[in-house]
Amino acid sequence: MKELRIGLIGAGTVGRGLIELLQTRAEVLRKRTGKELKIVAVADRSYAKKDFLKNQSFDVTDDASGLVQRADIDVVVELIGGLDPAKQWVMDALKSGKHVVTANKALLANHGAEIFRQARESGKEVGLEAAVAGALPVIRNLRRVWVGSEIQEMFGILNGTCNFIITRMQKENMAYEDALKIAQEKGFAEADPAFDVSGRDAAQKLAILSTLAFDHLVQESDIRVEGITELSPLDHAMAMRMGKVIRLLAVAKKASDGYHLRVHPALISSHHLLASVEEENNALFTEDPYCGPTMIVGRGAGGFPTASAVLGDIAAIARNPENEPEVWLSGEESLKVAADASYRFYLRFRTLDRAGVLASISRVLSDHEISIASMHQEEGPEPVDVVILTHHARESQLFGALDIINAMEMVRAPTVALRLEEPGQK
Amino acid sequence: MKELRIGLIGAGTVGRGLIELLQTRAEVLRKRTGKELKIVAVADRSYAKKDFLKNQSFDVTDDASGLVQRADIDVVVELIGGLDPAKQWVMDALKSGKHVVTANKALLANHGAEIFRQARESGKEVGLEAAVAGALPVIRNLRRVWVGSEIQEMFGILNGTCNFIITRMQKENMAYEDALKIAQEKGFAEADPAFDVSGRDAAQKLAILSTLAFDHLVQESDIRVEGITELSPLDHAMAMRMGKVIRLLAVAKKASDGYHLRVHPALISSHHLLASVEEENNALFTEDPYCGPTMIVGRGAGGFPTASAVLGDIAAIARNPENEPEVWLSGEESLKVAADASYRFYLRFRTLDRAGVLASISRVLSDHEISIASMHQEEGPEPVDVVILTHHARESQLFGALDIINAMEMVRAPTVALRLEEPGQK
Repeated sequence: MKELRIGLIGAGTVGRGLIELLQTRAEVLRKRTGKELKIVAVADRSYAKKDFLKNQSFDVTDDASGLVQRADIDVVVELIGGLDPAKQWVMDALKSGKHVVTANKALLANHGAEIFRQARESGKEVGLEAAVAGALPVIRNLRRVWVGSEIQEMFGILNGTCNFIITRMQKENMAYEDALKIAQEKGFAEADPAFDVSGRDAAQKLAILSTLAFDHLVQESDIRVEGITELSPLDHAMAMRMGKVIRLLAVAKKASDGYHLRVHPALISSHHLLASVEEENNALFTEDPYCGPTMIVGRGAGGFPTASAVLGDIAAIARNPENEPEVWLSGEESLKVAADASYRFYLRFRTLDRAGVLASISRVLSDHEISIASMHQEEGPEPVDVVILTHHARESQLFGALDIINAMEMVRAPTVALRLEEPGQK
Repeated sequence: MKELRIGLIGAGTVGRGLIELLQTRAEVLRKRTGKELKIVAVADRSYAKKDFLKNQSFDVTDDASGLVQRADIDVVVELIGGLDPAKQWVMDALKSGKHVVTANKALLANHGAEIFRQARESGKEVGLEAAVAGALPVIRNLRRVWVGSEIQEMFGILNGTCNFIITRMQKENMAYEDALKIAQEKGFAEADPAFDVSGRDAAQKLAILSTLAFDHLVQESDIRVEGITELSPLDHAMAMRMGKVIRLLAVAKKASDGYHLRVHPALISSHHLLASVEEENNALFTEDPYCGPTMIVGRGAGGFPTASAVLGDIAAIARNPENEPEVWLSGEESLKVAADASYRFYLRFRTLDRAGVLASISRVLSDHEISIASMHQEEGPEPVDVVILTHHARESQLFGALDIINAMEMVRAPTVALRLEEPGQK
């Protein structure tokens, strides 16, 4: 039986899961791919401290630069993440004639074009299923099943940390800080959660998905990003009263004025499929004129789910190593990002309870052509929360108005502004 | 540019959708596959009556036997359904060196092994994504992304007709017959709905999915099938009172006593992801120890969704026509079907309102070691409905008891027995 020889860089949770899968599932993988999927070498800078790397049949090293040059390796699996030195090793692996499988969303969201250009020159594959939403087959699906489709809208719940925090707040009437603490205790959030809760992680994933869906190069910097740190239990309670729930959505829409690319918390109908995505789950909801609305939901992170996605890419290479490599973009058209967008907004102002406050806020909104659909004020000690639901308003006008309102002395915290989204209702 | 030459058998709704997709999406398909996807010939027995087949650049014929032999065709797309003559044409196409793409679930559920044996001999591909759940990437997913996984349980909502009827009954407190009528008016149910509402359609799809998931040959006849025709609004109301909803589930489970393969209406928690699958949507929920619970949901039928799945298979062949063909089974292990199973049951008896009825029913249940968890009787004119929820009971015992109960004079209709399922809770 022929072999496919694997070099692994990074033996963290995912790498360890991959090693375990390759070993415990060896027989079924032989049957399904017709090849022996064999780990030849593992590079990890703390390899000496990792007991599971001891007494293995593969070489263990801290020299990843050497690993990518070895002549006896067919596929390099990159699982260290980050831009540097991952990019160099991935490029070197491709240049020296190896296939690459990676879970590195930052790398692809920022240097995808360059990496796939090299892959094309080398005639080698770059497997990236694991870079977005773990074992959920979102990448393969965009490329393969929906090859002839024309996706108009994508709505992703692409960050399990945020979704866990948001659904805990929603269900248990919990403050953001308390829900974050539980997420950290359960291992769903890092000690420094900024990368996740700011929405940046989701934005990197959205850049990859929208590049593939729209065949235009979308980079992280093209995406407008707002995080979840300002959400309060009142926002969830008000959403529920409106028959809605809050989710951190990664949104990509094709429109006549260009592409709308955003990551932000939004209110969606509690009857929408995306509202059923709870806890640490991820999901991708797509809408296109041929396939209709479709959603894939499940674990978007974690050792084994991500390792399973890596393994799927390895197995595809094993079955057909001489395949025409997948492309990143089939054209080189430049991306037109829409300058502005119109939404209904949920606004929560934190103000002193004085005569004239509402009048002042209303006047600024009205000056910016923002019309109020409803208003709600909670009784309580100062400062009080005032919730306003607007009719459709331009984002530019809305944020212009908020700049003025937030500067008012009576306004005691930055105003929370949440968009109302209706996925699939365009 | 190279061509991939397509011969299409069957120009119904799906075939017409495929022709339209190939024509309107020609440019993006050229870019994404590197080939011209060109329809060379279409065989349809009523071709003369179909205006959209007129003035086309391809040949039109009623001679499918001739089409599959043509030397200038690379891929035969079979969209007529049924066993005969579809099987012959598919086999002949493979024997004469063509790839095949088919949406024919009956064919694969009954003759999949033979067809894939021929495909292997001929070194050609059989694309079957469209045979189950339209554009939902369930087949590709089982084969590719989760290649190393070990699926323990699958729960499918695989028949859009049944799901439409069930969710209409649930939401609008509607009788089965009325919901069926709406489904027929909307084109979601055939004039003769028996194949769908009996559960057979879902069983054929489950046979295909479980063959691929478990790597054992599962045929339609291995699956225990119960339909939805006996459901009443009361069943939905009682389910709701229990915090549950009813869905027609296609269930495949791996257990120590063998494989459990069933299609039946079941009660599931209204908080479960599968409960969010409404109207004509389809879904597949899988659970495996590596990827965790995952669900894919969307349109499972219809012209364009199914044509999109066909097109995905065609495009995969176009990109890499010399690929190692996919296999149906990687081994030849025989399937062990579990003889019996234990469930909690929801039972609805339709009886005369006489003293002693409940005592008689209870005694038969007790004689069969079935213990009653709760009982509910609706007031009303005779015959009345008596609903009993059991503790865990063996199916064999339960159905033995029902045979006796249904033969009682006071029992006026076959008893409705619904299983309580907890997908992903094993």
